Amino acid sequence: MPEPTPLALPEGHPFGPHNLPYGVFSPGDAPRRVGVRLGDHVLDAGALAAELGSPHTALLTGPTLNPLLAAGRPVWSEVRAALTTWVTDPAHQAAVERHAHPLAEVSLHLPFEVGDYVDFYASEHHASNVGRIFRPDAPTPLTPNWKHLPIGYHGRSGTVVVSGTDVVRPSGQRKAPADPAPVFGPSVKLDIEAEVGFVVGVGSERGRAVPLEAYRDHVFGLCLLNDWSARDIQAWEYVPLGPFLGKSFATSVSAWVTPLEALETARVVPPARDEALLPYLDDSSAEPGGYDLRISVEINGEVVSEPPFTTMYWTAAQMLAQTTVNGASLRTGDLYGSGTVSGAEVGQCGSLLELTWNGERPLELGSGGRSFLEDGDEVVLRAWAPGAQGVPVGLGEVRGTVVPRT
Amino acid sequence: MPEPTPLALPEGHPFGPHNLPYGVFSPGDAPRRVGVRLGDHVLDAGALAAELGSPHTALLTGPTLNPLLAAGRPVWSEVRAALTTWVTDPAHQAAVERHAHPLAEVSLHLPFEVGDYVDFYASEHHASNVGRIFRPDAPTPLTPNWKHLPIGYHGRSGTVVVSGTDVVRPSGQRKAPADPAPVFGPSVKLDIEAEVGFVVGVGSERGRAVPLEAYRDHVFGLCLLNDWSARDIQAWEYVPLGPFLGKSFATSVSAWVTPLEALETARVVPPARDEALLPYLDDSSAEPGGYDLRISVEINGEVVSEPPFTTMYWTAAQMLAQTTVNGASLRTGDLYGSGTVSGAEVGQCGSLLELTWNGERPLELGSGGRSFLEDGDEVVLRAWAPGAQGVPVGLGEVRGTVVPRT
Repeated sequence: MPEPTPLALPEGHPFGPHNLPYGVFSPGDAPRRVGVRLGDHVLDAGALAAELGSPHTALLTGPTLNPLLAAGRPVWSEVRAALTTWVTDPAHQAAVERHAHPLAEVSLHLPFEVGDYVDFYASEHHASNVGRIFRPDAPTPLTPNWKHLPIGYHGRSGTVVVSGTDVVRPSGQRKAPADPAPVFGPSVKLDIEAEVGFVVGVGSERGRAVPLEAYRDHVFGLCLLNDWSARDIQAWEYVPLGPFLGKSFATSVSAWVTPLEALETARVVPPARDEALLPYLDDSSAEPGGYDLRISVEINGEVVSEPPFTTMYWTAAQMLAQTTVNGASLRTGDLYGSGTVSGAEVGQCGSLLELTWNGERPLELGSGGRSFLEDGDEVVLRAWAPGAQGVPVGLGEVRGTVVPRT
Repeated sequence: MPEPTPLALPEGHPFGPHNLPYGVFSPGDAPRRVGVRLGDHVLDAGALAAELGSPHTALLTGPTLNPLLAAGRPVWSEVRAALTTWVTDPAHQAAVERHAHPLAEVSLHLPFEVGDYVDFYASEHHASNVGRIFRPDAPTPLTPNWKHLPIGYHGRSGTVVVSGTDVVRPSGQRKAPADPAPVFGPSVKLDIEAEVGFVVGVGSERGRAVPLEAYRDHVFGLCLLNDWSARDIQAWEYVPLGPFLGKSFATSVSAWVTPLEALETARVVPPARDEALLPYLDDSSAEPGGYDLRISVEINGEVVSEPPFTTMYWTAAQMLAQTTVNGASLRTGDLYGSGTVSGAEVGQCGSLLELTWNGERPLELGSGGRSFLEDGDEVVLRAWAPGAQGVPVGLGEVRGTVVPRT
């Protein structure tokens, strides 16, 4: 019986040949290059493509995924098909092993240059919870527009950081309703938002809307995303123009972008719509637009929530259609987040704001009681999706530790 | 008496050697290069610098201003001093003329690659007017936070376009309060916002605030900006997360970026503050942070408003301090807008929303009555500032024509 090779994976490994997410890595101080994750290794995709004579080598040499993202869906499929062949065909095993680096020995970088970053608010449970907490006197928790369009706003693309980057606690103004004037200091309500991010590959022209059915021609893949939020700063600043400093200090994304093709088996029908949708958003006769992604939120190694992405009211295709319906153009590298993923149950909420009901019901963790995050807390988001034959498709984790400003 | 040279300017020309704004141009189909405006000519700054042996030639060769922006204040001063010498010293006249192109014979391009675009809301008159129109039932027109911090939000950097670019009328959802459900179609309340934009040269580190006094180390210069706005789309979408599609379809900037050094004589003390400011915003003992910029708004050749920038409550330095006080980093090419500039008088408002009081009092123009913009309308923003010896410093115009979506 032959020795198992270094790249042999146990049955059902979530980063097996059925997954093959893309990232950007560097071995030591070497320049950044495009990597593909296989098990606990990173394949140097550009070097492998060059050795095996791929016509797409130039798209895979780094320092970002942007050239691959811009290449378009037919090329995405060709590259993925080639990679699948390389990692499964024994004829290529030696080449693959020559270009494999143990994950633990490389640095992972922000995988793409971010164009515009838009954050949505697509979970009905999350939006309802936030409405109850922030606007207790409003007649209904959801604003009247919520079921007619996916609400979104632009975030700061310059502070999108890769998993593993420390998050410096933001300072800012806060004012409780009874305070006579705002005070300044480090946020005392630092929170997370567990989200899924969608990465635009192919841009679009200004003045043209991207219809629902063109979603997969434009969106390359998805990542996990933590939209760090300072609730005290946000509550004081956000009326009337929306969140700004409460969010703009950091948004973490996974180091791995999972191509949509790897998630075909995870597609599901979104929840029933309570309001008739205008034609540009009406997906009642479209292919299933949801994804069955099972997310977990860990604080200091303890799982505090398991948000189910199946519960999201608005789909990624609808968010893209909304972004462009006014004629706004897309660029390669545009990123949009789903908004916090929260299910119907308490243990399915993607933010501490909800999990502790704005601090009224602190979590009891092994590391102590938590209303919001303390300095030193490490947050990890993980997710997986059901794949073919019951093999999970793993998404890259998003890890971040809160540090005080020095 | 010698012949006047092609570059001889009449006394007091607003684009004389005291001004020298930067842009990006191409003569015909040639590659984009950095230009400096002198009168009605564009000097090819890179070619001139190369011929005259400048050490900064590489910063001036294009295709954007970003390398110059990133170079920092000492270099900005050196480049400006060299340009001033070149265009005023007869010894360099022949070289300057060799590299001068008539404005009418070149194409002007977006002068810098935009990082993040933030839009503020810094005019008390504008914010009060909008409050009265959009929130008539609120106890006060200004929200409680307004005088404690400059309110801002992120806009879409991918749809920032240069003056002269047509603006496609956006489509979207709108719903009047009495309508049973939203309807979809082209905006019927397309508006302008006359603003001043500030262009960040030198970036900053994540986790560090940029104090008021570092403003001129980071901001390179300013431009005119038209933040096109669809009021009907905005009114329906903006609660609770702020403007999105009502603004994201286009933001026009002037082709010329005026360096701050050209506007030293235009600095003025901002209005008295009605609330004590937290230390990071307190400019009571700082150098004057306002600018005396006289703006005019033309529709189809007719001046409809003359907004005075002196009335802005918040200064550019305060907006920058606010943007970074939470630790958000800056990047070269970040752009922030002042928000609509409106004075106390009706004829000083920078938006049709205010000028027509949301359409209740249409303007009577030679081209017909106008509540909001019609297809084919051309809007031009112009501005100038007082310079030394009474010579005005001209800002680049922002021109745009509304076209229907095809």
